[in-house]
Amino acid sequence: MSGCPYFEKRHLLFKNKPPTAEGEEDASQAGVNKASKGGIIYGEYLQLDKIVSAQVLQSELKGNKIHDEHLFIVTHQAYELWFKQILWELDSVRHIFITGCVRDERNMLKVNNRIHRIVMIFKLLVDQFSVLETMTALDFFDFREYLAPASGFQSLQFRILENKIGVPDNLRVPYNRRHYRDNFKGHESEMLLATEQEPTLLKLVEEWLERTPGLEVDGFNFWERLEINIFDGLNKEKEKIEAMEDSEDKEEMMLELIKQKELFTSLFDEKRHDHLLSKGERRLSFKALQGALMIYFYREEPRFQVPFQLLTSLMDIDTLMTKWRYNHVCMVHRMIGSKAGTGGSSGYHYLRSTVSDRYKVFVDLFNLATFLVPRHWVPKLNPNIHKFLYMAECCDSSYCSSEDSD
Amino acid sequence: MSGCPYFEKRHLLFKNKPPTAEGEEDASQAGVNKASKGGIIYGEYLQLDKIVSAQVLQSELKGNKIHDEHLFIVTHQAYELWFKQILWELDSVRHIFITGCVRDERNMLKVNNRIHRIVMIFKLLVDQFSVLETMTALDFFDFREYLAPASGFQSLQFRILENKIGVPDNLRVPYNRRHYRDNFKGHESEMLLATEQEPTLLKLVEEWLERTPGLEVDGFNFWERLEINIFDGLNKEKEKIEAMEDSEDKEEMMLELIKQKELFTSLFDEKRHDHLLSKGERRLSFKALQGALMIYFYREEPRFQVPFQLLTSLMDIDTLMTKWRYNHVCMVHRMIGSKAGTGGSSGYHYLRSTVSDRYKVFVDLFNLATFLVPRHWVPKLNPNIHKFLYMAECCDSSYCSSEDSD
Amino acid sequence: MSGCPYFEKRHLLFKNKPPTAEGEEDASQAGVNKASKGGIIYGEYLQLDKIVSAQVLQSELKGNKIHDEHLFIVTHQAYELWFKQILWELDSVRHIFITGCVRDERNMLKVNNRIHRIVMIFKLLVDQFSVLETMTALDFFDFREYLAPASGFQSLQFRILENKIGVPDNLRVPYNRRHYRDNFKGHESEMLLATEQEPTLLKLVEEWLERTPGLEVDGFNFWERLEINIFDGLNKEKEKIEAMEDSEDKEEMMLELIKQKELFTSLFDEKRHDHLLSKGERRLSFKALQGALMIYFYREEPRFQVPFQLLTSLMDIDTLMTKWRYNHVCMVHRMIGSKAGTGGSSGYHYLRSTVSDRYKVFVDLFNLATFLVPRHWVPKLNPNIHKFLYMAECCDSSYCSSEDSD
Amino acid sequence: MSGCPYFEKRHLLFKNKPPTAEGEEDASQAGVNKASKGGIIYGEYLQLDKIVSAQVLQSELKGNKIHDEHLFIVTHQAYELWFKQILWELDSVRHIFITGCVRDERNMLKVNNRIHRIVMIFKLLVDQFSVLETMTALDFFDFREYLAPASGFQSLQFRILENKIGVPDNLRVPYNRRHYRDNFKGHESEMLLATEQEPTLLKLVEEWLERTPGLEVDGFNFWERLEINIFDGLNKEKEKIEAMEDSEDKEEMMLELIKQKELFTSLFDEKRHDHLLSKGERRLSFKALQGALMIYFYREEPRFQVPFQLLTSLMDIDTLMTKWRYNHVCMVHRMIGSKAGTGGSSGYHYLRSTVSDRYKVFVDLFNLATFLVPRHWVPKLNPNIHKFLYMAECCDSSYCSSEDSD
Repeated sequence: MSGCPYFEKRHLLFKNKPPTAEGEEDASQAGVNKASKGGIIYGEYLQLDKIVSAQVLQSELKGNKIHDEHLFIVTHQAYELWFKQILWELDSVRHIFITGCVRDERNMLKVNNRIHRIVMIFKLLVDQFSVLETMTALDFFDFREYLAPASGFQSLQFRILENKIGVPDNLRVPYNRRHYRDNFKGHESEMLLATEQEPTLLKLVEEWLERTPGLEVDGFNFWERLEINIFDGLNKEKEKIEAMEDSEDKEEMMLELIKQKELFTSLFDEKRHDHLLSKGERRLSFKALQGALMIYFYREEPRFQVPFQLLTSLMDIDTLMTKWRYNHVCMVHRMIGSKAGTGGSSGYHYLRSTVSDRYKVFVDLFNLATFLVPRHWVPKLNPNIHKFLYMAECCDSSYCSSEDSD
Repeated sequence: MSGCPYFEKRHLLFKNKPPTAEGEEDASQAGVNKASKGGIIYGEYLQLDKIVSAQVLQSELKGNKIHDEHLFIVTHQAYELWFKQILWELDSVRHIFITGCVRDERNMLKVNNRIHRIVMIFKLLVDQFSVLETMTALDFFDFREYLAPASGFQSLQFRILENKIGVPDNLRVPYNRRHYRDNFKGHESEMLLATEQEPTLLKLVEEWLERTPGLEVDGFNFWERLEINIFDGLNKEKEKIEAMEDSEDKEEMMLELIKQKELFTSLFDEKRHDHLLSKGERRLSFKALQGALMIYFYREEPRFQVPFQLLTSLMDIDTLMTKWRYNHVCMVHRMIGSKAGTGGSSGYHYLRSTVSDRYKVFVDLFNLATFLVPRHWVPKLNPNIHKFLYMAECCDSSYCSSEDSD
Repeated sequence: MSGCPYFEKRHLLFKNKPPTAEGEEDASQAGVNKASKGGIIYGEYLQLDKIVSAQVLQSELKGNKIHDEHLFIVTHQAYELWFKQILWELDSVRHIFITGCVRDERNMLKVNNRIHRIVMIFKLLVDQFSVLETMTALDFFDFREYLAPASGFQSLQFRILENKIGVPDNLRVPYNRRHYRDNFKGHESEMLLATEQEPTLLKLVEEWLERTPGLEVDGFNFWERLEINIFDGLNKEKEKIEAMEDSEDKEEMMLELIKQKELFTSLFDEKRHDHLLSKGERRLSFKALQGALMIYFYREEPRFQVPFQLLTSLMDIDTLMTKWRYNHVCMVHRMIGSKAGTGGSSGYHYLRSTVSDRYKVFVDLFNLATFLVPRHWVPKLNPNIHKFLYMAECCDSSYCSSEDSD
Repeated sequence: MSGCPYFEKRHLLFKNKPPTAEGEEDASQAGVNKASKGGIIYGEYLQLDKIVSAQVLQSELKGNKIHDEHLFIVTHQAYELWFKQILWELDSVRHIFITGCVRDERNMLKVNNRIHRIVMIFKLLVDQFSVLETMTALDFFDFREYLAPASGFQSLQFRILENKIGVPDNLRVPYNRRHYRDNFKGHESEMLLATEQEPTLLKLVEEWLERTPGLEVDGFNFWERLEINIFDGLNKEKEKIEAMEDSEDKEEMMLELIKQKELFTSLFDEKRHDHLLSKGERRLSFKALQGALMIYFYREEPRFQVPFQLLTSLMDIDTLMTKWRYNHVCMVHRMIGSKAGTGGSSGYHYLRSTVSDRYKVFVDLFNLATFLVPRHWVPKLNPNIHKFLYMAECCDSSYCSSEDSD
């Protein structure tokens, strides 16, 4: 950034001292510092020779240079830079989960911050459309012919991103009547297949939710207690309504109550859950759903405050990705209209079909809002449980606490 | 962008047909189209091999990989990408002015749109700080030692941008007690010197304003008419006040009137203007200032609508650059505190000193707000002048109207 | 705004002087100024007693004060304030069109600025969701029971806004299985009906587009010339393709060409247009569509620069309204999940159904992107026409030029 | 919000049931529900009659209606609405601190969320300037005379907000050469004085930081350990440098080291701290500063994760308030220029002087960035201390856990 002399001289003092090697340095090391004093400068550090030389206009190559193509290129490159950053954060978070380091609750701050950073990047990416929208359909028309068959669909990083978060293969909308992977070259197609087979963020969060403290049947047994409370509550409602004088309202309330009962019966019905899971309408296991609801209800307990923030940020990512898709649709509508020029798939309609809950990975976290209950129906915690929910788990593995765990 | 099949097949039909060569195409040309059908794909088009491989962490090279350094790199690369785009737009606009094509008023839309695009990019760049702000001072501390002596001050593109817009050499705050150019290597320093010597956007806009139709002394003679109206108006005020009964208010109003008279006397005082100019407190010539005020007052006349938008956008750029500087200051305050660690210049204080009206290139356009007058003091246009202000100038040079003029 | 002493004393001098009454002021008037010197202060001016006392929590009235209800109220009030501002701008623009003042092209700046202001307000309103999103589903659940049956659907101003822009009655999605108006009380329902019967912005823009200079059959006759050029162009393409050697590519290109021909044939087919119009798939008259396309193609001509900006801003409004709807959907998904608790309409699904091109008023302006052609197919302007497109029309009615025209 | 049927019928079931009174409801209560079924509707709930009728144009009252005054009014009203919301959040947070409920760490989530909400509101308020900026200086000039002597400085809510956060009386820039309170009427001036005497957010956070677990001299004794580690570290550096061969670099490094030693000596010098405190250059007590640094260094420990987020959000508020002030300055520059029209204070220069670190309440949290040290200098936690920092404190007072605590 311009004019920012971040780097005070004093830091030379600390140079080249990895935390684990503090005693080993000697005077010769200090000499090395001296040698590197010339150091690196801004442009080399950022490899600007690559970055700012990568704008080659196809229109210019074809002898008809169109001014706005430069904007088109730079905007897409900026998107790809940020996709790379998102992947960087995503991989580090997945690594913390995969290695089990997430069990050391000290790592939750890191997980949370990095997921939050992804949220902030997606916010920027949603706003970034406003720049490309300074190009009109007519400006675009002047050079779009030169770009065929390049297509934004071919953004490998974006597809990998979707895969790593957890957009499942079988819920994807086909593109050009072909499986999404078949639109990529062999090498890239293999990379995509590989990322499909790695543990997704969804899967990792699911496993973590299944371990939510308090779910243990021989412990607090949240799920059973909740079921009891809810149906007790509904039965009391029923009695109150039955005691009312007959009226249209009474009837209506009774019908309502019956529907409520059905709704909550469905919540506790594991078979139904598994059925919805098989259809892709739910994504989290029955146990993970219980964990999420437990965190929702006891979010103020110290151990659940940061996990609750995490669940909120995961919904933020889903929301922002869907807003990104929708803003993309709006831009394409403006650029090429809603009709496919000629047979073949219409870009507009393909994109529109991806603005769907099928592409919302953490859709279950949203839908839990359907199953909220009054605070006094939530099972009360006794002092023991309180204490339990105050006491973080620690795994003192140096492996997890060192910075290079990611 | 992901999933965007912008490029319908039909465009193959129009391929390789520059507007100027329509008749020359033959069947062999069509054959070329066919050959290129394989065409270019997304990743090649955007040269993503360069873009997404340019993130090398110094901390990793030094054996102590710090996760957040990746964000630091990507953010700065994104800034540089956008700086390149701003320079692209800025150069094209300056080209239109330099070649005289701006005299063909058809080119005003282009000028306006491109300047507006710079505005939209700067808005994004101001917002972009929110991403880097997800890194705390403590995260930054972990790797900032590895970066010395790289510094954002060394962003060549940003300095060129300032020069091309019109930040003058002599108003710059010294950095590390040295002339700004001396902080760059020989080759870069020469490039900077060269851009200082090219016509700046400020200079080009000034020349254009000096030609504002209506300023001609032997024509509408705006400036003289305005002077007459203003002093007539003030005299009428004076008479009214003098007719009032004596009171504290009367005295106050009279004092006020005297100050007003002084203010407007200063507006028409060319010598005083030139004095302020020599001190850097004004930047536009006396004539250009007249043109700007004329455009302000008659902004609704058809010929002045787009010029008025242009003046507004130029102020937007100044405002956004100063907001960018200020947001930068805020971030640096958070990252390294306000004290220089140790002797040497403090980054925080250097940056803060650049958030100054000295760095506002179009400061005169803002300050004209001091010289506004009631609508009924503005010289009336007669039908001839109306017509005159309705009739755009055309320069039918094919040079200017062809797309490659930029 | 805090700390802003906008109002310099000198303005006392100009006080109470409407432009039309300049001569009539006398000393007694000046005396009035003096009397009013105490003047109005900030809080009174803004009627803050009303504004900041209008937050009454239903939960508190019901004896169970929930902190977050205050945010819910303030957010909605802020939306309504801005809706009022949008209506203010919209009515003033419609007034300029209805009174014919738009024929004085001096008023185009005003029209453009006000439409652009609506765009900027909608941008803010889209961003404003980020504040309400700090409330979680669980926070909302604590008080939502107290609000029944109040519903955002009942925002009268928003429905009026939709009507005045041009969302047609017959394309609206029914709400709770009832006509949208039937969800309002009698008095409000009548207001809605009345606004349906006033000229919409869509209608007014349509009439204005129909008068686009250059469409005259006995003049430049844009439409016929365009038709000729396009089919000439396509025929030349055909010849070129026919001259190619037989190949798969040749076949493909020929098929493509046929589709292109069909597409453009449809563009010039008035009957088909009227059919689409009757189904609500098009909204602008055939003539107005021609005008819009003419402005698109000759947008750089001085007379068309501002009209072109206007068309762009109208698309911006549509886009932002649809983004607003979509952001609203996303928030509701998070707040109440996707399932209706119990019979009755699901808020989520109702809202989702309004994120549709049926609610895009200026959809035709987007879809024109389908009918763009290479620059060399656009009919050439000769010098006469050039001059014609440089010369704004003036209507010197003092009615239109005075500020109270709006 | 438009079209949002948040309120499913089923909630009728839970109506009027405060959590503490669950058993007491009887059939007659249910009858009440029925009666209220008509319930409240949107417009009444939001008191829209007050909100949308509060726009009275002074220009219209004075017989010269100026269109843009409506925007001016609505924008300021929107600011005041949001100021009220910020005060609502701020008061609730201060209440949690004042009543001691903050000692129950379950309340940290609430504190954090509400402070974060203030952050989100300020972000919106910074963006909101973009709407008012659609008004040009010339539009503003047409009505600003009518507003005197109203001034944004007179925003009572904003001054109260500053006081409650902790902008101290004695660091304020005088306005119109008068004490800030003297610019308000008697009644308002008293309110301001009262808020100066209430505990500020700064003061409350300070007390909370002073209690940071781990500071106890007879416990972990963070401060002494840190001092030892830092000076040990610096001495080792010194030895290493002394062992180097003589050279210019060696000298430079030695000078550097001496400065570092001075810097850190100052950190541990309580007298110097108190001196800076008395001058207003520091704001937090010596003990509180220690607490903040402890939280910084051990932010990943479960008990400190949320406190660390809180410190970050407090800096966000400061940063956003200063950005708000700066954006305000930029707008005023554009609206009235930089010169005071006539004697008296210049609005522009007054506002500019408030964009100062004097108005940054939590400036110490920023400046701590100066005192960061390498991770291996931070005192190591042993397992006991780990456990200690994992175990939240609980205060089981029902007073604090019930929702009405705020």
